[in-house]
Amino acid sequence: MRGAVLYGPRDVRFEERPLPTIIEPTDAIIRLSASCVCGSDLWPYRGISRYGEPTAMGHEYCGLVEDVGRDVTSVRPGQFVIGSFFASDNTCPHCRVGYQSSCSHRELVGGAQAPQLRVPLADGTLVATKETPADDMIPSLLTLSDVMGTGWFAADAANVKPGATVAVVGDGAVGLLAVLSAQQMGAARIIAMSRHPTRQAIARDFGATDIVTERGNDGVERIKELTKGVGADSVLECVGTQEAMTQAIGVTRPGGSVGYVGVPHGVSLDGERLFFAHVRLHGGPAPVRRYLPHLIDLVLSGTINPGRVFDQTLPLDQVAEAYRAMDQRRAIKTLLRT
Amino acid sequence: MRGAVLYGPRDVRFEERPLPTIIEPTDAIIRLSASCVCGSDLWPYRGISRYGEPTAMGHEYCGLVEDVGRDVTSVRPGQFVIGSFFASDNTCPHCRVGYQSSCSHRELVGGAQAPQLRVPLADGTLVATKETPADDMIPSLLTLSDVMGTGWFAADAANVKPGATVAVVGDGAVGLLAVLSAQQMGAARIIAMSRHPTRQAIARDFGATDIVTERGNDGVERIKELTKGVGADSVLECVGTQEAMTQAIGVTRPGGSVGYVGVPHGVSLDGERLFFAHVRLHGGPAPVRRYLPHLIDLVLSGTINPGRVFDQTLPLDQVAEAYRAMDQRRAIKTLLRT
Repeated sequence: MRGAVLYGPRDVRFEERPLPTIIEPTDAIIRLSASCVCGSDLWPYRGISRYGEPTAMGHEYCGLVEDVGRDVTSVRPGQFVIGSFFASDNTCPHCRVGYQSSCSHRELVGGAQAPQLRVPLADGTLVATKETPADDMIPSLLTLSDVMGTGWFAADAANVKPGATVAVVGDGAVGLLAVLSAQQMGAARIIAMSRHPTRQAIARDFGATDIVTERGNDGVERIKELTKGVGADSVLECVGTQEAMTQAIGVTRPGGSVGYVGVPHGVSLDGERLFFAHVRLHGGPAPVRRYLPHLIDLVLSGTINPGRVFDQTLPLDQVAEAYRAMDQRRAIKTLLRT
Repeated sequence: MRGAVLYGPRDVRFEERPLPTIIEPTDAIIRLSASCVCGSDLWPYRGISRYGEPTAMGHEYCGLVEDVGRDVTSVRPGQFVIGSFFASDNTCPHCRVGYQSSCSHRELVGGAQAPQLRVPLADGTLVATKETPADDMIPSLLTLSDVMGTGWFAADAANVKPGATVAVVGDGAVGLLAVLSAQQMGAARIIAMSRHPTRQAIARDFGATDIVTERGNDGVERIKELTKGVGADSVLECVGTQEAMTQAIGVTRPGGSVGYVGVPHGVSLDGERLFFAHVRLHGGPAPVRRYLPHLIDLVLSGTINPGRVFDQTLPLDQVAEAYRAMDQRRAIKTLLRT
C-alpha cells in the first residue's frame, strides 16, 4: 500500500509502505474510511519538533476492522470502529479514572495517512458503532479520534459549566471544536479569538457569541473589557505557544480555569506569576477514549457536526498538498479520501 | 507602642512605632490577643525577597475591636474578631466567588507583631465570634488568620476528597496544617514528607498515616512505591521552592491535583513536562476569608486544635529571637504574647 512518510521539514512523501499486519495478539488492523492531517503534524512538518528517521504519519482514524489478533475479544472483523491517537489498555489505574492517554501501556498510533492501519491494544482502544454509519457521517466521526475529543477535553479541563463565560485561544480545528464543546456544555458566552473570516464563521456556527481579533496584550485587554474587568470563567488554550498560554492565563478570572491542549512548544511558566494569577490549570494529551461513546452518540444523533472543520478534501495521494495547505493556513483541516 | 520592624536581612528590631489610628472610614483598630511569626516572614528576613525600607512586620492577628471608622457596620468595639492577612471588601466579583485574596480592593495587612493593628476594609475582612473566646483558644484562632486557612486552601485547591490518597510536601506550620485539613476532608491516606521527629509527631497527631523522610527524586520514588506506582490523588505543596514543586508534580497521578500555597520563589514550570504530567494545578494566596466562619466553628467546637503548631511562646519584646528560632528551625512557629 502507499502512505505518507515525513522525511524532514516540509518533505512529506507518498510512497510504498508494507501492509500492516498483526504483530501482537492484542492488535487490530483497520481499513480506514478516511484519513486527515492534524495540526500537531505541522510541528514536525515545520521542523519545530524532529524525528530521527523517516516516519509514517497520521494518527486520526476510523474504519472497518479487517483483522484482529487472537486475544482481541471486544471488536471483530467487519465492525466500524473509532479509536484514540493514544492506544490504551483501558484497565490500568490511570485508564480507570478516565486518563487513558496516560495509560501505563499507552502507545502512540502512527501511520494513519494510508489505506490500512495497525491499532495496538484493540480491546482498550477501539469503540465500535452498532451499525456501519452512512458515508456522510465519516468526517464527523473521524474528528472524534483526536481534534473533537481534544476540544472536548479543553472544555472539560477548564471546568466549563452551564451559564459560564468562556474564552477560546486558537482558531485551528481544535480551537473551533473547543467552541462547539463549550456550547454543548452550556456556556452562556463564548469568546473566540480569531482574525480569519472563514474561521470566525465556523466559530459562530459552533456557538461563539463574540469574536476578538486582537492578540497578545491587546487581546487580553479586549476580553477584560468584554467581561467588565473580571475575566472569563473558563479559558481553552488550543495552540501550545508561549503567547497563547500567556494570553489564556491573562484572561482567566481568579478562581477560573485554563484548559490547555496545544502541545506546548517552548512554553515556560513563572511560578510566582501563576500563583498570583490564582487560576486553575489542567491539560495534557486528551483522554479521547473516555469521551468516545458520548461523542459518537452526539454525532450519530445529529446533535453535533464537528466534520464541518474539514474545508478541503483531497485524494490520499495528494497528502503533500494537504500539509502545504494547512501549513499556509489555506485550509483549516484537510480530509484525505483513502 | 512598640512593635517589630525589619531593617534588612536578619535585622528585626523591636522599637517604638506610632499607635495605629483610623485612616479610612472603613478601618478598624484591633487590640491583639496574641501575635506570631509566619514562615513567609522568613523570605524577607533571609533576604530572599527584599523591602525597600524598614517595614513593620506581622500579618496574622485576632483580638478585640478597639475602634472602627464611621462606615463600619458589621463589627463594633469590644467584639473578638479574626481576619485574613489580605483585607478584602467581600463584595467584588472575585470575593463573591470566594477568591477574597484576589479582591479588586485587596490590601496586605501589615504590622501585626505589635499590641495594636489597623485593619482596612473591616466589614469585608473581619469575622466576629459570638462571645469572647477563652484564653486557651487564642493560639488556634490565631492560626486561622493565615497558616490554617492556607493549609485548608492547599487541600481544597488539590481537590482532597473522602477516601483520597494525599501527599504533603513541606513540614512547616502550613504543611502540618495541610495534613490536618486533608484529614478533616476525609482523606484515607496522608503521606507527610518530613525528616524532623518533632514535626513528624505533630503530622501523625494531625492524621498523617505515612512519613517519608527522603527528598527530591528519592522522595518521589518512595511515594510512587507507597502508592503502587500510581501516585497520589492530591498533593499539597507548602514550601514554594523549585524542588518542592517538582516533587509535588512528580508524585501526583495523571488526572490528580496539586494545590500549591508556598509563595513561589524562583520557581519555573516547563510547559511540555507539565502537559505530559497530566496534573491539575491550582494555588495562590489562600482566600482565608472564605474559610473563616467554618474554621472558627471547628476550633470553638474543639474539633481541631491547629494551635498545636506553636511550639514556642515568647513575650513580644523577644520577637527577634522568635525569628532566629524559626529561621534555624529550632521552632516550628512562635507565639508572641502581646
